[in-house]
Amino acid sequence: MTATGSDVALRRLYDDLAAESLMPLWTVRGDLMPAAPQPAAVPHVWRWADVHPLARRAGDLVPVGRGGERRAIAYANPGCKGEPYATPTLWAAVQYLGPREVAPAHRHTQSAFRFVLEGEGTWTVVDGDPVAMRRGDLLLTAGWRWHEHHNTADAPMAWLDGLDIPLVGALDAGFFQYGPDELTDRSTPELSRNERLWGHPGLRPVGAEVPRTSPLMAYRWAHTDAALAAQLELADAGHPGAVGPGHAAVRFTNPATGGDALVTLRMELHRLAAGASSAPGSDGAGARRVGSSVWQVFAGDGTVHLDGEPMAVGPGDVVAVPSWCPLRLAAGGGGLDVFTFSDAPVYEALALAAPEGAPS
Amino acid sequence: MTATGSDVALRRLYDDLAAESLMPLWTVRGDLMPAAPQPAAVPHVWRWADVHPLARRAGDLVPVGRGGERRAIAYANPGCKGEPYATPTLWAAVQYLGPREVAPAHRHTQSAFRFVLEGEGTWTVVDGDPVAMRRGDLLLTAGWRWHEHHNTADAPMAWLDGLDIPLVGALDAGFFQYGPDELTDRSTPELSRNERLWGHPGLRPVGAEVPRTSPLMAYRWAHTDAALAAQLELADAGHPGAVGPGHAAVRFTNPATGGDALVTLRMELHRLAAGASSAPGSDGAGARRVGSSVWQVFAGDGTVHLDGEPMAVGPGDVVAVPSWCPLRLAAGGGGLDVFTFSDAPVYEALALAAPEGAPS
Amino acid sequence: MTATGSDVALRRLYDDLAAESLMPLWTVRGDLMPAAPQPAAVPHVWRWADVHPLARRAGDLVPVGRGGERRAIAYANPGCKGEPYATPTLWAAVQYLGPREVAPAHRHTQSAFRFVLEGEGTWTVVDGDPVAMRRGDLLLTAGWRWHEHHNTADAPMAWLDGLDIPLVGALDAGFFQYGPDELTDRSTPELSRNERLWGHPGLRPVGAEVPRTSPLMAYRWAHTDAALAAQLELADAGHPGAVGPGHAAVRFTNPATGGDALVTLRMELHRLAAGASSAPGSDGAGARRVGSSVWQVFAGDGTVHLDGEPMAVGPGDVVAVPSWCPLRLAAGGGGLDVFTFSDAPVYEALALAAPEGAPS
Amino acid sequence: MTATGSDVALRRLYDDLAAESLMPLWTVRGDLMPAAPQPAAVPHVWRWADVHPLARRAGDLVPVGRGGERRAIAYANPGCKGEPYATPTLWAAVQYLGPREVAPAHRHTQSAFRFVLEGEGTWTVVDGDPVAMRRGDLLLTAGWRWHEHHNTADAPMAWLDGLDIPLVGALDAGFFQYGPDELTDRSTPELSRNERLWGHPGLRPVGAEVPRTSPLMAYRWAHTDAALAAQLELADAGHPGAVGPGHAAVRFTNPATGGDALVTLRMELHRLAAGASSAPGSDGAGARRVGSSVWQVFAGDGTVHLDGEPMAVGPGDVVAVPSWCPLRLAAGGGGLDVFTFSDAPVYEALALAAPEGAPS
Repeated sequence: MTATGSDVALRRLYDDLAAESLMPLWTVRGDLMPAAPQPAAVPHVWRWADVHPLARRAGDLVPVGRGGERRAIAYANPGCKGEPYATPTLWAAVQYLGPREVAPAHRHTQSAFRFVLEGEGTWTVVDGDPVAMRRGDLLLTAGWRWHEHHNTADAPMAWLDGLDIPLVGALDAGFFQYGPDELTDRSTPELSRNERLWGHPGLRPVGAEVPRTSPLMAYRWAHTDAALAAQLELADAGHPGAVGPGHAAVRFTNPATGGDALVTLRMELHRLAAGASSAPGSDGAGARRVGSSVWQVFAGDGTVHLDGEPMAVGPGDVVAVPSWCPLRLAAGGGGLDVFTFSDAPVYEALALAAPEGAPS
Repeated sequence: MTATGSDVALRRLYDDLAAESLMPLWTVRGDLMPAAPQPAAVPHVWRWADVHPLARRAGDLVPVGRGGERRAIAYANPGCKGEPYATPTLWAAVQYLGPREVAPAHRHTQSAFRFVLEGEGTWTVVDGDPVAMRRGDLLLTAGWRWHEHHNTADAPMAWLDGLDIPLVGALDAGFFQYGPDELTDRSTPELSRNERLWGHPGLRPVGAEVPRTSPLMAYRWAHTDAALAAQLELADAGHPGAVGPGHAAVRFTNPATGGDALVTLRMELHRLAAGASSAPGSDGAGARRVGSSVWQVFAGDGTVHLDGEPMAVGPGDVVAVPSWCPLRLAAGGGGLDVFTFSDAPVYEALALAAPEGAPS
Repeated sequence: MTATGSDVALRRLYDDLAAESLMPLWTVRGDLMPAAPQPAAVPHVWRWADVHPLARRAGDLVPVGRGGERRAIAYANPGCKGEPYATPTLWAAVQYLGPREVAPAHRHTQSAFRFVLEGEGTWTVVDGDPVAMRRGDLLLTAGWRWHEHHNTADAPMAWLDGLDIPLVGALDAGFFQYGPDELTDRSTPELSRNERLWGHPGLRPVGAEVPRTSPLMAYRWAHTDAALAAQLELADAGHPGAVGPGHAAVRFTNPATGGDALVTLRMELHRLAAGASSAPGSDGAGARRVGSSVWQVFAGDGTVHLDGEPMAVGPGDVVAVPSWCPLRLAAGGGGLDVFTFSDAPVYEALALAAPEGAPS
Repeated sequence: MTATGSDVALRRLYDDLAAESLMPLWTVRGDLMPAAPQPAAVPHVWRWADVHPLARRAGDLVPVGRGGERRAIAYANPGCKGEPYATPTLWAAVQYLGPREVAPAHRHTQSAFRFVLEGEGTWTVVDGDPVAMRRGDLLLTAGWRWHEHHNTADAPMAWLDGLDIPLVGALDAGFFQYGPDELTDRSTPELSRNERLWGHPGLRPVGAEVPRTSPLMAYRWAHTDAALAAQLELADAGHPGAVGPGHAAVRFTNPATGGDALVTLRMELHRLAAGASSAPGSDGAGARRVGSSVWQVFAGDGTVHLDGEPMAVGPGDVVAVPSWCPLRLAAGGGGLDVFTFSDAPVYEALALAAPEGAPS
């Protein structure tokens, strides 16, 4: 569009608009509505070899306590200038709890989970239910549930925290409340009460309440591992059920609905057999998708291709994948187990998939 | 209503109506629309001590084969004159398979399950997936899936079959098809493929298809037993989750949706601790309900109160509970485990619960 | 299956089974589970020229009053021996109300509607809301709502009543209650309150309660007619939206959900242009369907093909179509408007469609 | 939290974290997770008397054409520095089309509507269906539908555009495509085809496709006005259905589902009788809500209370209400009609309501 009036008249119009808190579309339309998503976030890999020592140093220097609340170090996407966000919707952080250390209770409407890369001996107490945290486990803290952590071991423990903090922030929807300063429960049961009620395949406790988010709050590695192993065995024997050849994946779901375990976050574990590669277009691991995701290598090694760029990855490495960025995973000789979480349920709920005819 | 015309004129009208396949409402209204449900079906108890010997005699006299298809003996409600139905919507039968015996493949749109009272060594092959049947297991055969059975043991085996035959019959909705006369699969895997894909708590195989009915087709006793035990322990410790004091119950659900495992049938297992009793109004076991159910004692002994009438029951005994008939269960000294199935999902789908202000 | 034991032993077994209220499957399997639906109900046509005079005679001879409740004459399918049912799930009746006559209030859990073939001047009062009844209107009385009728005109009035009485009866789910003997409301507003709240296209009253069944209880002919006319015009102009060439149809829906107006009944009005015919397989009017339906010609004339058999039909004629019976409609020279109701929502809710591979 | 290490060590840690694109939670926790929403957006009122002349000046100076696409002037919330957004999720703009002017076709995944404050003579062509725009009408352009506008009148026309541009931008989910430069359809039918198919209360065209968003794309003022008038009349007569005393409201919904007309936006029209006031807590107009909204006075005058601050408003004035900001509307002597749109469906889909125990 070219101005037909004089430049002077036009400049005066723009000034007058600005004075009234108005802004012309035609000067910004292209940026507002690009032909395809142009995220500020960039594809990025953080190395566990870099991150872990820094977490340990924080453990030495910074106590856990009221106000700061958690010794969590956020993966801050270099494209999201100054924001501690892995992607525009996802928070990812390594949380570090020293031997015998305790994190006090609080609650918030942001949804959270923990995925344990290594170690054990910590319990997270969610609404009064103590949940053991061990290697490979996924533990949930749905919105507005009280939670506190205590490490009963003599060794520090580190895990991945995932939350929808950026999304809830962009939507101005967050509430936060402090709980008691003292730990409310120091018991250390093998199994949490929610698992004892809800952790039996296909069985629903008839008398239990069914909340909107998953009443099951712990997904144990033994189950995850067995499910992935079975998929690959079945695929090898020519049966359906895996994502693709040499590619198994499980989604962590709400047993009361079959839907995602948290309303705003999707969590999955993908396993690639030695030498296998996630096919482009396979669910959650190969396709270009509208919406972003974070991946953490749990075991094995391989290569992650971000927009065609190969990066070698190993245990603990974290990868941020912005919206519409092509992703492919390839396993090395020992196979590759990767945990991932994404904002996919948000886009499904809001019907924000790529339209027909979108650039592929 | 009293006729104002002469009786003759009225009789002539009724004859003329009948001749035109018409029928006056006012002469039948009370029967058509009673104040509360008046089922033809009656409360009834069948004794395992009576049923089992008859099944064995049938095993000696009647072969399993094409046409009759299954050596199944139906629990025929004495109120449903001449119909082999446990209730107006539910079919229940004891199926008996001799040593090394085989039942050939067929499929039908009626939904079916098997619940195993005792024994092991039989496999049911559902759409090509062999499923082991053992004591306490619930096995599904959703509508229109090929299925055949083979007993690999030297002992006969008997189990409870439940189907929606009467409902599907009343709705003129049944289709039936014969499969091959010869057994299609004689393998005897410990775990069926559907369990290996779907039998992990809260874990969904990302690449698997999700049918309308439960993709999980076997619910093992070990899981059921553990879930019930946990509920009672939690209740003893003052935590929620059980149906009531000393009363635990699990529902067998579709892990992909959290809903009932079959679209038209609800299956549950209830456990009453020694001396406990299902409270009136507790879910599925004490209330008067619109819709009918069948119960089979799995273990222990106790008393079933049908419309106030107490009947002692023990393992294998089967109870039919018509619509709107009050039911209460009471455990004897050894506790009581009872399997049940009902038509509850039908009434929920059709919004046919008792209305507000119904006679209580 | 042939008995291996002696006939005597077998006969004794069958006697012993019968004595214990047990019944062998293998002797009845074919009837219980036919290859395709074999309804007792038959295709049938009732002529308005036969029915209407009989209704008038009933008007002279039988008063409306407590007990009988309504002067309704049921279309009784000749195949359903002795039952006043149009099909195994559907009740259809002509209701006849004399000049100034009144039908007292009652309520029942059975769902009901009225479709007005001709006349006006009657109001049905539903839960205290007086609803005018006029030619071509569809009026709802969802389950458990009080309703009474009063004819304010000097002429009698007749309409079609449709209910799910047989279905609710087969499910032992009916409750019935008498209201006051005297009419509760004699007002005669043009528009009922429910229409004033809910009868605006696409507009939902923010402050109104949303019941499970349609809050809109009157569908006026002017709207129905306009919608059908528009579909045919659009089809003529090459635009989509009609069912097929010369075939328009509207479904009466719950504006709060978009689903069927009643939970158990689907109501539609079909219009065929002069000379047009419902194509086999077109929605609701040509295909063989699992489930049954009733059709009443509202205007025009034509031919209904029932399982290939052509029958000429005109205004007021009623047709019963059993499950799985092929149906085709063909309009005469003046076009054909047909009202229909069916049990389709029941079969959709219970996933009881014809399976893949069903005989076609 | 106070650092236990020396300040130097801590500063070095923070520097090293930053170098690795990591960020400590404990230094930013309070801002990230406030006790209640602290939106950057502020409550704001734009006066029609200010906005309209500027739109007219833009009409003189700036042509409509390819690239800029539309002569739309965005209401830019003073709190959202530099962003042309009314709130963090909602775009609102006045669009101005001169006599005989044309805006070329494009499509985008962002959802859009137009609400017409005054004038007529413009048609918007949506996926080939020309839709007349007149005073009080709401017109939809769901995501990824081609649309173009043409003004057939000799007078300019201005309307309110609402879109989810900020939300879709924050989610990196937008796609945009240019259509042909020339207008594709210059016809000017009274009623669009979508209205002829879907604009009949409670009637669903059996043969029409049902998209995810509303198939009805025009909501005419005559219907809206009648619905609001009826609510107030019913309330005056003591019947339910209005939001509160003197307060009527309709929501624009998808007739195929009863849900919001657009997946991400809720549109409503509220009418307050002379002297009436929206009660605190009444739906959509009085309560503090998580999520934001925009309101435009359509007719009448009154006062809007934003966080307790009263502001007189009249026709055309636009109000932005950030998340968690209390709002109350009060009508002047002539009553008050206010159109509003909000992001409420997003928060409902994502379960992001205010939690129990939130500060009230």
